[in-house]
Amino acid sequence: MNIPKSSFPRIIIVGGGFAGIALAKKLSKKEVQVVLIDKHNYHTFQPLLYQVSTGGLEPDSIAYPIRKVLKDFPNFIFRLAKVTEILTSENIINTNIGILEYDYLVIAAGSKTNYYGNKEIAVNSMAMKSIPQSLNLRSLILENFEQALLTDNYHERNALMNFMIVGAGPTGVELAGALAEIKKGILPKDYPDLDTRRVQINLIQSNSRVLKEMSEEASEKAEEFLEELGVHIWKNMRVTGYDGKTVTTNTEEIFEAATLVWAAGVKGVKMKGLDAKELLAGGNRIIVNQYNQVKGYDNIFAIGDIASMQLKDLPNGHPMMAQPAIQQGENLGENLVRLLENKPLNPFVYKDKGSMATIGRNKAVVDLKKFKFQGVFAWFVWMYVHLFFLIGFRNRIVVFVNWVYNYIRFDREARLIIRPFKRNYDAFKN
Amino acid sequence: MNIPKSSFPRIIIVGGGFAGIALAKKLSKKEVQVVLIDKHNYHTFQPLLYQVSTGGLEPDSIAYPIRKVLKDFPNFIFRLAKVTEILTSENIINTNIGILEYDYLVIAAGSKTNYYGNKEIAVNSMAMKSIPQSLNLRSLILENFEQALLTDNYHERNALMNFMIVGAGPTGVELAGALAEIKKGILPKDYPDLDTRRVQINLIQSNSRVLKEMSEEASEKAEEFLEELGVHIWKNMRVTGYDGKTVTTNTEEIFEAATLVWAAGVKGVKMKGLDAKELLAGGNRIIVNQYNQVKGYDNIFAIGDIASMQLKDLPNGHPMMAQPAIQQGENLGENLVRLLENKPLNPFVYKDKGSMATIGRNKAVVDLKKFKFQGVFAWFVWMYVHLFFLIGFRNRIVVFVNWVYNYIRFDREARLIIRPFKRNYDAFKN
Repeated sequence: MNIPKSSFPRIIIVGGGFAGIALAKKLSKKEVQVVLIDKHNYHTFQPLLYQVSTGGLEPDSIAYPIRKVLKDFPNFIFRLAKVTEILTSENIINTNIGILEYDYLVIAAGSKTNYYGNKEIAVNSMAMKSIPQSLNLRSLILENFEQALLTDNYHERNALMNFMIVGAGPTGVELAGALAEIKKGILPKDYPDLDTRRVQINLIQSNSRVLKEMSEEASEKAEEFLEELGVHIWKNMRVTGYDGKTVTTNTEEIFEAATLVWAAGVKGVKMKGLDAKELLAGGNRIIVNQYNQVKGYDNIFAIGDIASMQLKDLPNGHPMMAQPAIQQGENLGENLVRLLENKPLNPFVYKDKGSMATIGRNKAVVDLKKFKFQGVFAWFVWMYVHLFFLIGFRNRIVVFVNWVYNYIRFDREARLIIRPFKRNYDAFKN
Repeated sequence: MNIPKSSFPRIIIVGGGFAGIALAKKLSKKEVQVVLIDKHNYHTFQPLLYQVSTGGLEPDSIAYPIRKVLKDFPNFIFRLAKVTEILTSENIINTNIGILEYDYLVIAAGSKTNYYGNKEIAVNSMAMKSIPQSLNLRSLILENFEQALLTDNYHERNALMNFMIVGAGPTGVELAGALAEIKKGILPKDYPDLDTRRVQINLIQSNSRVLKEMSEEASEKAEEFLEELGVHIWKNMRVTGYDGKTVTTNTEEIFEAATLVWAAGVKGVKMKGLDAKELLAGGNRIIVNQYNQVKGYDNIFAIGDIASMQLKDLPNGHPMMAQPAIQQGENLGENLVRLLENKPLNPFVYKDKGSMATIGRNKAVVDLKKFKFQGVFAWFVWMYVHLFFLIGFRNRIVVFVNWVYNYIRFDREARLIIRPFKRNYDAFKN
C-alpha cells in the first residue's frame, strides 16, 4: 500500500462501525495520521437492518459513506480493504491490497453471526448482520410469497409461509414484530389470491424470556405485544438443525419452513496474528484491559463488539451493542492523545444509557436507569433515539419521511426484489 | 400456472413498464380479468436510472411494487415470471412458471440494450437499462477510484479514471453531466490523496449532434453545458471495439479506459412465437396497426418500446420513450373496452408533449411545441415533470428530499458500494 508516512505517528483503525467512527471523530484535529480500513466503503447503522429486510427502509438510508465522514479531517486516509493478518513483531498489518506499518493499531472489526459450529444451519439459514444479507432476506421473504402462489403442494405452500426466527434478542423480536405487521397489513392486499392466514411467524428462544438482557417488565410486555400481533413464541427451545426444509429442536417439536433467520448470537471476527489461546475470551472476543489495550502490547487496542473488557461486575465484557462501542471509541480517542502527550490514561467507564426495542406500531419497550416504560410513548422515544444516532442529515430526513409515511399509510413500500436471492425450492419437491 | 378463470375475458399484459401500467390502470374497473406478468416485482422509472448510478438517488426510490399498483383493482392478478414463447394458434403463453391461456394478449415487454451484434462490447461494457445494471455501474465507478489509489502504474491509474460514454441521447448526456459534477464537487473531498484532475469524461456520438432527437437549439445548448462541465465530446465517431481496456473507433483515435457505458441504442425484446420475418421491423420492434394490433391477429397487441406503428410521418414508429408508451397503454385500455362492447376502435394519436434532458445543476434543455428554453428554468421544469410522473407518493417525497438536499449541499450521498461489481483489473497489468 503506497501511503506516504507523515511526520505524525500513524494510527490504523480496522473497521468503520460504531467504535471505529467514534474513535476517528475524536482524532479528527489531532497530530496523528489516521488510516481507516474497512471492507465496505460505508458505515452501517445495524439497529435498523431489520427494517431493510421488511421493506420499511431503503438500504442506502441506513448506510453512510465512510469517506464522507472523514472528508473534513486532515491527515485521514481511507482504504477499502480486508485485513488478513497482524504481524505484531514488525508493527505491520497484511491486507488484500498490501502491507502497512503502524505505530498504533486499533482493532474495531466488530462481530459476525455465531452458528456455534453448526455448519448445516450456517449454510441454510439467513443472517441479518450486513446490508447485503438484509437485502437477501427481503428478497427471500417476497420470493416465498410469489412461490407460494405457484405450488399446488399443500406442505410446500405452508412451509413457504412459515417464518422461523431463532433468538429473541432485539434483532429477533423486531424482525418478528415487523413480519407480523406485514402479515396483517400488507399481504392480504398484495396477495389477494393467497390465503395469508396461513402465514406463521415463530420466534424461538433458548431460555425462558424474550429480550433477556432487558428488565423483566420489558420482557413481559414485549411478549404480550408479540402475542397480540400473532407471533408464536417458543421458549426454552433450541434449534438443533435445519436442512433448508425441516427445523429440528432439542424438544420433540419440529417445523417445516422455507425460511429460518438465525439471530441467536454473534461472535468476534477472528484476527490472524493474535495468540488465540492467550488473548481470546469466549466468542472470539479479544481480552483488553481498562484502557482497551490488548494484553502484552503497548500499541495495540481493541474496541467495540470485538473487545472483551472483563471487569468485576462484567465478567464477560460489555454487551455487544452500539453504546459500549461508541463510548469505547471516544474514550480511546482521548487516551491516544494523552498517550502521545505522555499523560496517564483514563480507564473506560461505561455509562449505561439504557436499552430499548420496538415490536411494532405504537409498541416498544424502554429501560432507562430510573424509568421503565412501554407502549406508545416508548415507541416515539425509540424512533427519536434511532433518528438521533443515525449518521448523516440526509439519512435522518429520508428515514423520518419513510416512518411518517409508513405510520400514516400502514405501509412499507420498499418491498422490491432488486436482486433475487437464489433459493433452491427443490427441497420441498419430495 | 393455477389461475382460475373468471366469467370475464382474460387479458394478459406482458411487462409492467410505462405502457403496461398505463394500460392496467385503464382496465381497473372494467369487466375483465387482467393477468400482468413481469420478470421483476416492481415498475422501474427508467429516466432516473442515471441518478442511481451516480449516487444521487436510492434504487428503491425510483421503483414501485407492481402488486401495490394493482392492489385496489378487483380481478387483477400479478405473476413474477418470464415469458418464453407465445403459442398464437392456441392462445397460450409459455412462461418459466407454466402455461397460461389468454383471450387477449398485450405485449409490453419493452426494450433492451442494442450492441448491434458486437459481442466484445456487450461483454465488456456497462449498460443502464435496469436497476441492477445501474447499481453495478455505481459500484464500478466507486471501485475504480478506490483501485486508482492502489496502483503505481501511470497508465492503469489514468484508465481507471477515464469514463467513456457511448451515445449522446438523453441517457448518455445526463450520465456525462452527472459524472462531471461528481468530478468537480465530490471527488476532491472524498479522495484527497488522488489527483482527480486526471478524471476524464468522454462522450462519443456517431453523428454530428448531441441529443439529436431534440431541436438544434437544445443540442447546441446541451453541448455548451457539457463543455462548461468539462466533458469531452467526440462527434461523428463510432466505437468499434472494447476489450475492457482499449476502446477502438472508426477513426484513428483510441482510448484506454476501465469503464465504457453503452448508451448507443436499444432494441425490442424478442418474443419467440411471432414470425420475425413477417412481423418485426428494425430493432426487433413488432409492427402494429393504428390500434396497436399485431398484424394478422385480432387478439394480440403490442404497446410501448416494443411496438412499431409505422405512419406516414413516422416511418420508423414512435420514439422509444415513456410518453408514447403511456399514451399507447391508455388508448389500448379504452379500445379493449370498446372491443368487448362491440364498438369501433379509436386509432392511436400521439400527443407530443415535448422532450427534455438535464445536464447538471441549473442546466437543462426543454423542447415544447411552442417554446424551447434552456438553463435554470428548464432545470426546474425538468425536475417538476419527473417528480410528477414518478409513481407513488412516498417515492415523490423521498426523491424531492434528496434533490433539495443534493442541491443545497452540492452532494450525492448514496455513493455506497452495496454489492461490489467484480471487475477484472488484470487487463491493465501488462
